[in-house]
Amino acid sequence: MSQALDELRQRLAEISDLSSAAGLLGWDQQTMMPERANPLRAEQLGTLSGIVHERFTDDAIGRLLHALEGEEEALRQADPDSDDAALIRVARRDYEKSKRVPAELAVEMARAGALGHQAWVQARERSDFASFLPFLRRNVELKRQYVELFDDEGHDDPYDVLLDDYEEGMKTAEVATLFSELRAQLVPLIAQIAEKSDAVDNAPLHGSFEPARQAVLVRGVLERLGWSPDGWRLDEAEHPFAASFGPTDVRLTTRYDPSYIGMALYGGIHEMGHGLYEAGVAPQLARTPLASGASLGLHESQSRLWENVVGRGRPFAGFLHGELQRVFPEQFGAIDAESYYRAVNKVQPSLIRVEADEATYGLHIILRFELEREMIAGTLDLAELPEAWNARMKQYLGIDVPDDASGVLQDVHWSAGEIGYFSTYALGNLIAAQLWQRARADLPQLDEQLAAGDGSALRAWLGDHLHRYGRKLPPKELVQRIVGGPIAVQPFADYLRAKLTPLYGLS
Amino acid sequence: MSQALDELRQRLAEISDLSSAAGLLGWDQQTMMPERANPLRAEQLGTLSGIVHERFTDDAIGRLLHALEGEEEALRQADPDSDDAALIRVARRDYEKSKRVPAELAVEMARAGALGHQAWVQARERSDFASFLPFLRRNVELKRQYVELFDDEGHDDPYDVLLDDYEEGMKTAEVATLFSELRAQLVPLIAQIAEKSDAVDNAPLHGSFEPARQAVLVRGVLERLGWSPDGWRLDEAEHPFAASFGPTDVRLTTRYDPSYIGMALYGGIHEMGHGLYEAGVAPQLARTPLASGASLGLHESQSRLWENVVGRGRPFAGFLHGELQRVFPEQFGAIDAESYYRAVNKVQPSLIRVEADEATYGLHIILRFELEREMIAGTLDLAELPEAWNARMKQYLGIDVPDDASGVLQDVHWSAGEIGYFSTYALGNLIAAQLWQRARADLPQLDEQLAAGDGSALRAWLGDHLHRYGRKLPPKELVQRIVGGPIAVQPFADYLRAKLTPLYGLS
Repeated sequence: MSQALDELRQRLAEISDLSSAAGLLGWDQQTMMPERANPLRAEQLGTLSGIVHERFTDDAIGRLLHALEGEEEALRQADPDSDDAALIRVARRDYEKSKRVPAELAVEMARAGALGHQAWVQARERSDFASFLPFLRRNVELKRQYVELFDDEGHDDPYDVLLDDYEEGMKTAEVATLFSELRAQLVPLIAQIAEKSDAVDNAPLHGSFEPARQAVLVRGVLERLGWSPDGWRLDEAEHPFAASFGPTDVRLTTRYDPSYIGMALYGGIHEMGHGLYEAGVAPQLARTPLASGASLGLHESQSRLWENVVGRGRPFAGFLHGELQRVFPEQFGAIDAESYYRAVNKVQPSLIRVEADEATYGLHIILRFELEREMIAGTLDLAELPEAWNARMKQYLGIDVPDDASGVLQDVHWSAGEIGYFSTYALGNLIAAQLWQRARADLPQLDEQLAAGDGSALRAWLGDHLHRYGRKLPPKELVQRIVGGPIAVQPFADYLRAKLTPLYGLS
Repeated sequence: MSQALDELRQRLAEISDLSSAAGLLGWDQQTMMPERANPLRAEQLGTLSGIVHERFTDDAIGRLLHALEGEEEALRQADPDSDDAALIRVARRDYEKSKRVPAELAVEMARAGALGHQAWVQARERSDFASFLPFLRRNVELKRQYVELFDDEGHDDPYDVLLDDYEEGMKTAEVATLFSELRAQLVPLIAQIAEKSDAVDNAPLHGSFEPARQAVLVRGVLERLGWSPDGWRLDEAEHPFAASFGPTDVRLTTRYDPSYIGMALYGGIHEMGHGLYEAGVAPQLARTPLASGASLGLHESQSRLWENVVGRGRPFAGFLHGELQRVFPEQFGAIDAESYYRAVNKVQPSLIRVEADEATYGLHIILRFELEREMIAGTLDLAELPEAWNARMKQYLGIDVPDDASGVLQDVHWSAGEIGYFSTYALGNLIAAQLWQRARADLPQLDEQLAAGDGSALRAWLGDHLHRYGRKLPPKELVQRIVGGPIAVQPFADYLRAKLTPLYGLS
């Protein structure tokens, strides 16, 4: 290794350590920290992120990256999958993005996001969009300033700049095409199902479920999927998430709703999908910027694959049904496997994205993507956002929104300035179906394994084809390698139709 | 505030944030972290401590401290208790110490300490001092190099340099005088008690105690002393400790021994004493180097005061007895309060320091202090340390040491290079008795309050006289202010005799 590469690695390793420390402080804040520590924790996180930014945008890193241009090319020619070449590529991408953003704008975006978040919490409680509007305006204004910093790059759509932060290389026009096709598939499917909405009953998932027993259930299920106490944790959090501070320290959170078993069980499997991705990154990528998922869409493909495709698929749902009968005999003793399978696959238009089923979920995302584009383009007056939201909810899902709390104020993202993020959720669903199609072809015993509660073969397949690469490859290249083509709608649409047609007796 | 002071505060606040982050990583490592994360966590902690050292020894801090010399004096003249003057004083002390230590020596001491710790764990398991000897030699050699860095300061004893790191301003000769007086008090007292060793029975503390119920008991007791979930945590750790990341985030740990209730109960009260000190530091000192205890001796005075003087004193022991009867009715239903009080005050020479009672504890410390002085002076061949240890155990406590695991290898400190630390434990006992004498004089209702399980008046008294100052005053000045004189042996000796004379029917 050249001295320049050695120095770059050393600097990036320290930055990775600092980021992991900040990550742990964030995890602790949401799971362990006493409430009164909040103001001090904010200072600690602010200091850490400031030092990370300062160290990462140090001109010395720019000089090292410049000095390494020839070596990067040589490394890649010697080995197209060279870790070091990928490290230099990703570090350069991140560095050049960071360098464009003046410290004042970064600080102001963080500040406006924090203030916006506070205002949103209160506005949502009172269902009062007007009180949130000035904070949203500020966030959007700052995002538009951010977009302008990249104007010389010649993007086709200002929204491209935001999208690229979450999904490298993805263009707004591509997402719009995919979403238009997705909408064309979903709307008639959901309409057909609406006519037979009584065909599926999800009552078995509702009842009384003691949290301590839920915890036993969830941990048992996750252990079948690869969770183990020597490298993982499972804790409670109000807003569940997965975090990792290296492949040997993956931490999942879940929430035990005492009257609905789906929250902890499927939420836990969802976070497990994220966790498996982080845990599966090749060990030699630890302490580098390559040691995480390739994009938000790919990350979400993993949580969705395990939660929906596996968890709501007939084989593994059968296993889950057995576990539920064992842990909650009073609640599930009289429920047969088929009724359970039907219950977890009920499709029903609803107000809240995070509670939406697999089929209607995509329409919640399309609605947000369209509104975000207009917000950034400046073609939508933000004061009219609630009306625009409600009109689309009616149009796409046939639903009347009773108030802004369960409408435009339901999601946290915009309050914190996270604009450009939503579409990756739906891209994840599309990718999950594509990966599933390929994995099934490679693993002829997959259904039998999953029916026995054994996720190891699928986990190994995903590890080998996706997880181990971390951020080494651009997401589009990675998808192309694994599924032999770009992100596409048809596999997801076929998967949904194949499942829902018999379930609802559709033609 | 001058611009220089403003900048100093800002720099110190960031260093404090980084230290708190490192503290949280350490807490997490001992309470929450999955085991496989250990190697990565070591990297993260190494990076953080490196950055703390780098930032704190930055020449810019030296220039600010130099520029602030006049302002410091003016601030102190305007207000002898000026927070800012104290901040400058303490920052200068810490800075000048840090600057004397070359980075290579600091790194080598940390490395030798880590290697020594590993070697010690194995050596203790096999009771094999010889395998640990080379690591101990290295630690002592490095400590002697460290001492030499301060030679120009003209200390009377090389050990002064080490002592000053844990107990600012304390001299070896002073400790030696105190300890010689303490030994003269303890040895005959313990000999008298040995003749009547059957007078007190601690059997009630041993039995079967379900950990979950122990946790309920301990938390209930700590809540009476000021613990509350909004600013504190209580978790399990193999080697219990207290940590804090600001006065609003204090974390205690304890260990539930299923066959001995004293471990969790008195260990918990001990850590609570440390926690109350950290929680009681004035809020405006947060994010400064003043935001912690003034010295290890003063810190230990707080844990010992609550654990021994309060927790084993008749009034609060009566309250604890009632709690034990309530939570463990089978074990304590037939034990009266007097038997419980006697049980928790049994005095019996024993091999292990951390299990020693209030009276014999001091002799364990004196032995270690004497050996440390000889190790640093070079007058003791380290190969002969076990023999020297065993001879003193026989002389001071009348005990034959069966093997090095329960002798010279029992403590972690020397393995990690912590030499100069032990005496502060016994100083803490002395200070605790002095504080107690004064608090009782100021609080005429104290016994009645403690008998009712109410620690609030004593907590407020300690907060007002000690805790709120943090590190603002040098420890000697603080002791002088509160008790009107220097650290002294007589109050502790009187306290012990007054308690043990009736208990053992001594003359």
